Amino acid sequence: MKTRFILINTSHAGNVGGTARAMKVMGFTDLVLVAPRWANVLNREETKQRSSGALDVLKNARVVETVEEALDGMTHLCATAMTPRDFGPPTVTPRAHFAALTSPAAQEAGHSVGERPESVAFLFGSERFGMQNEDVYRCHACLSIPTDPNFGSLNLAAAVQLIAYDWREALGGFAVQSATPPARQADAAEVAGMLKHWEQALAEIGFLDPQAPKKLMPRLNQLFNRAQLSGEEIHILRGVAKAMSQAAGKQT
Amino acid sequence: MKTRFILINTSHAGNVGGTARAMKVMGFTDLVLVAPRWANVLNREETKQRSSGALDVLKNARVVETVEEALDGMTHLCATAMTPRDFGPPTVTPRAHFAALTSPAAQEAGHSVGERPESVAFLFGSERFGMQNEDVYRCHACLSIPTDPNFGSLNLAAAVQLIAYDWREALGGFAVQSATPPARQADAAEVAGMLKHWEQALAEIGFLDPQAPKKLMPRLNQLFNRAQLSGEEIHILRGVAKAMSQAAGKQT
Repeated sequence: MKTRFILINTSHAGNVGGTARAMKVMGFTDLVLVAPRWANVLNREETKQRSSGALDVLKNARVVETVEEALDGMTHLCATAMTPRDFGPPTVTPRAHFAALTSPAAQEAGHSVGERPESVAFLFGSERFGMQNEDVYRCHACLSIPTDPNFGSLNLAAAVQLIAYDWREALGGFAVQSATPPARQADAAEVAGMLKHWEQALAEIGFLDPQAPKKLMPRLNQLFNRAQLSGEEIHILRGVAKAMSQAAGKQT
Repeated sequence: MKTRFILINTSHAGNVGGTARAMKVMGFTDLVLVAPRWANVLNREETKQRSSGALDVLKNARVVETVEEALDGMTHLCATAMTPRDFGPPTVTPRAHFAALTSPAAQEAGHSVGERPESVAFLFGSERFGMQNEDVYRCHACLSIPTDPNFGSLNLAAAVQLIAYDWREALGGFAVQSATPPARQADAAEVAGMLKHWEQALAEIGFLDPQAPKKLMPRLNQLFNRAQLSGEEIHILRGVAKAMSQAAGKQT
């Protein structure tokens, strides 16, 4: 879905760079700055440094004078505000709102008006003052990130990061790459066979008294059950048992 | 649940301050630094500035020499790594892993070993090199934040922010305060009455031809249905209709 991030009256170059980076790691590239404190903020050294390579986002970003100009083509507007307003759009959490926007019901409705939007813009106010009321009022929803009521001081780029993350996840998310192939789990017979091997070896090294075994083997059984052993780990543990027997001077 | 954030070999003071702030907005306060680049990083000006008032987190933070020292008392260890390892704990997304850790099944199991942990530590490697293999290997899970496969360059403090957010949400989350009381929704009879009022007023101002009404009223009906009018908005719309009639020179 077409997605735009709009920063209004941003003061700190670092936050513009951090925003570009936060957007790009979540696969978003459309950034518009409304009347930033520094007209040349997109070209400042600190901005580039903090973007950490998200230079294409900075290069494609637009700087405009008014919020109206930033909103062209966008259909669903999400304000962000730490302090709720006594008037205006409903205050919602990002996660709940994004689930509603992308729910199967909204998707089935397809292009019918009033359901799943065609495009979404996220508006962020200045570091010190947040969004102005008139800008909040024109939005469809006011996103509030749930934070500690005693310390709601969320950094601007951090807020962008959280919104971009939740929105990307709601849109289906990126895959996570795993380099550890899923291990084949050992079945109960393999575990029982390995335990038999251990019982014998533990007796041979004198740790287990076959005449008074107490609850040693059931304890080990429970331990290995919880560990959810793989086939390869059964091999390792049988190797340990074999070495114990050899150390005790007896070949198994 | 007892929660600790551990930064290993961190280079940038700004990231230490940003981490303190990111933790505190999500209600976490236990920070440990393992062999940071600057031994005095907790007292540097940039650290304090970027913490934006999370000075108590910095003040209570510990600086230690080894990962072992940082882990005292922690039972469940989550590594964070952008590049998967071909050996070690399973690679999981934060959201899925946290749901499993805090699932009702894990909660019912209470203090039984192998289920819901008593405490959780999140380990973050250095900005340039990430975590060392031996530190990843000792962990129970390796968290990977799903990012754009073409640009996985997540800032350290931003990664802490996302993990802290997801973990706080999994623990039940903070409430979001709304200053807009939920509006009473208008019922169908109120909407129909208001539409009758509009139909009359639109005829009086010459916009609706009662002899050839076309589909104007059904269209307005659909529009107002989608808008899910409140009782107060019915009042406003009836006021508009009244003013239209008055403007047309006829009292309703």
